[in-house]
Amino acid sequence: MDNQKKDKVLAAMKEQKISQMMITDPESVFYLTGRWILPGERFLGLYLSEERKPVLFLNELFSFEEEIGARKVYYSDTDDLVPIWKTVVDPGKILGVDKTMASKFLLSMMEGQVAKGYVNGSVSVDDARAVKTKEEQEKMRIASKMNDAAMERFKGLVREGVTELEIAEQMLGIYKSLGASGYSFDPIVGFGKNAADPHHMPDNTVLQEGDCVLFDVGCKVNDYCSDMTRTFFYKKDPTPEERRVYELTLSANTGAEAYLKAGVELASVDKKARDIITQGGYGPQFTHRLGHFIGIGVHEAGDVSAANHNLTKAGNIFSIEPGIYVTGKVGVRIEDLVLVTEDGCEVLNHYPKDLQVIG
Amino acid sequence: MDNQKKDKVLAAMKEQKISQMMITDPESVFYLTGRWILPGERFLGLYLSEERKPVLFLNELFSFEEEIGARKVYYSDTDDLVPIWKTVVDPGKILGVDKTMASKFLLSMMEGQVAKGYVNGSVSVDDARAVKTKEEQEKMRIASKMNDAAMERFKGLVREGVTELEIAEQMLGIYKSLGASGYSFDPIVGFGKNAADPHHMPDNTVLQEGDCVLFDVGCKVNDYCSDMTRTFFYKKDPTPEERRVYELTLSANTGAEAYLKAGVELASVDKKARDIITQGGYGPQFTHRLGHFIGIGVHEAGDVSAANHNLTKAGNIFSIEPGIYVTGKVGVRIEDLVLVTEDGCEVLNHYPKDLQVIG
Repeated sequence: MDNQKKDKVLAAMKEQKISQMMITDPESVFYLTGRWILPGERFLGLYLSEERKPVLFLNELFSFEEEIGARKVYYSDTDDLVPIWKTVVDPGKILGVDKTMASKFLLSMMEGQVAKGYVNGSVSVDDARAVKTKEEQEKMRIASKMNDAAMERFKGLVREGVTELEIAEQMLGIYKSLGASGYSFDPIVGFGKNAADPHHMPDNTVLQEGDCVLFDVGCKVNDYCSDMTRTFFYKKDPTPEERRVYELTLSANTGAEAYLKAGVELASVDKKARDIITQGGYGPQFTHRLGHFIGIGVHEAGDVSAANHNLTKAGNIFSIEPGIYVTGKVGVRIEDLVLVTEDGCEVLNHYPKDLQVIG
Repeated sequence: MDNQKKDKVLAAMKEQKISQMMITDPESVFYLTGRWILPGERFLGLYLSEERKPVLFLNELFSFEEEIGARKVYYSDTDDLVPIWKTVVDPGKILGVDKTMASKFLLSMMEGQVAKGYVNGSVSVDDARAVKTKEEQEKMRIASKMNDAAMERFKGLVREGVTELEIAEQMLGIYKSLGASGYSFDPIVGFGKNAADPHHMPDNTVLQEGDCVLFDVGCKVNDYCSDMTRTFFYKKDPTPEERRVYELTLSANTGAEAYLKAGVELASVDKKARDIITQGGYGPQFTHRLGHFIGIGVHEAGDVSAANHNLTKAGNIFSIEPGIYVTGKVGVRIEDLVLVTEDGCEVLNHYPKDLQVIG
């Protein structure tokens, strides 16, 4: 158990008026205990309360010896969980549960009257996780630096006749050769009009002269994620419209980064980028939020969107990823990870962002 | 929408006395609609009821044109879902929800009084999915046949000085060259005492003469999963104890398969295999259930365990995977997928199971 992190979570629980909490997200369990347990459909729960020592509920199939600062309570596949939860959870108090806990467990707890009531308590853990410790910040720098190096290698795969899939399938090997443990998410490779679909998955599309080439990619290093997007043009200079789309996207990216510092509303960061694109006439083609928080998970709680009125804090790390998608024609997205500081931000990606015609 | 499958689910809902259901598991949505939508942390729900046309709730980021026999209701990242759910869900009736639906959505529905009450309604979908259609059975045969071919190739990777990871890292390429779309789960490769840990992940352990070599592997073909385990011995004949462990495991595997037919209790299938191992003196070393259901997902609802008193049905497909784990020494597991028929079962794997000393 990392006591500094545990105390951050307990303080956030106090603020939320939650006296006991069942943390079931394996990423959050890892965050606090330093141990990955991936239970699949089985129950995993780290119980935290102000009054008692933490308790880790886990299936005996995942038993381990190591001391982790939590009492371990094992159950088997044939056990009923309700009486096991009841040995620990205070039935007279509200229980905070993790937002992603499977409903089957929540419904069982409710039916078994394990606690007095249930609330989504994730914000306590999420607020703690959203402010990275110095050690976490350093790991995020390392992962993004590796992503910068990988991007240069990916660009080198662009050649006549290549398909999106042929490039995508080489990416994992490149990341591993650089020292990453794997992807932080399945890479997006989009040529031409495919780049105009923000969720496009690489397919057998063959590269054509004049295509834009979008890479949205990331790796995991020491359990922390990177995530960056760059968009190139292949062989031919972009059309005037494509150039305008690129420059507007870049301006939205750098404008938001220049604006950012601790204490500003997250919605205002989104607005900063969106206004630039809207004033350029492409507002409706910027179809998603500006960014998402990231760390152990590639999509952590918290986003940079019109709906998020929270203020940034020093230590937050999230993506700044404006995009313009002209359906059937071209898509451009330019994404960095940024670390919020008291008076600005540190951009964790250093791969160049100027328009490049390659090949 | 596959109407045959939808009608199976509606009939199962009727049996469960659930008149409306929100299906959120992407595998179940694919099962019914033939369309993969992977919404990550966002809400995806296929609403089924006897009275009305199905409705698919999805984020506008995942919009698509194709007609799927369900009305589409889009929402954006900034929308409150409660009023959107309320346009469809009947507030006067209980709502069945999927067992894996994130608790944050269930707690929001409860707070917003979207329905009269909530139950875990997954059994309706799970019962339908557990009985494979003829078309699904054929897809499962094809996936297992490919897994048989892959096992022979994996065996060919076993050579002096190789590590578990070096073998594991070649498996995806082999599956793809055979025509699979990918893994159905990350492969387990265990040498010697590592094989005695049923959840061992391949590491840098170097193969030694006399080691057992356990491969628990599977691929996806046309969206359906295979899953098979074989255990070999490297270069030296096994010790008498190892041989005994192997023969007992094999006997449990074939004994359960010979016993199996439609209409027997799933717990009795587990018992059949477990009794053989227990009578051989290794009961405590067979530490897990005998098998799990499989199809679109590698672990579907339903298992072959002492806790499952349901009866088998013709069309069920699950694994039969007894194992004996002698900590610090040796582990043997022998696993096939089987299709239950009226008077027996069809074993979908044909890779030989006799003890093989290789290399």
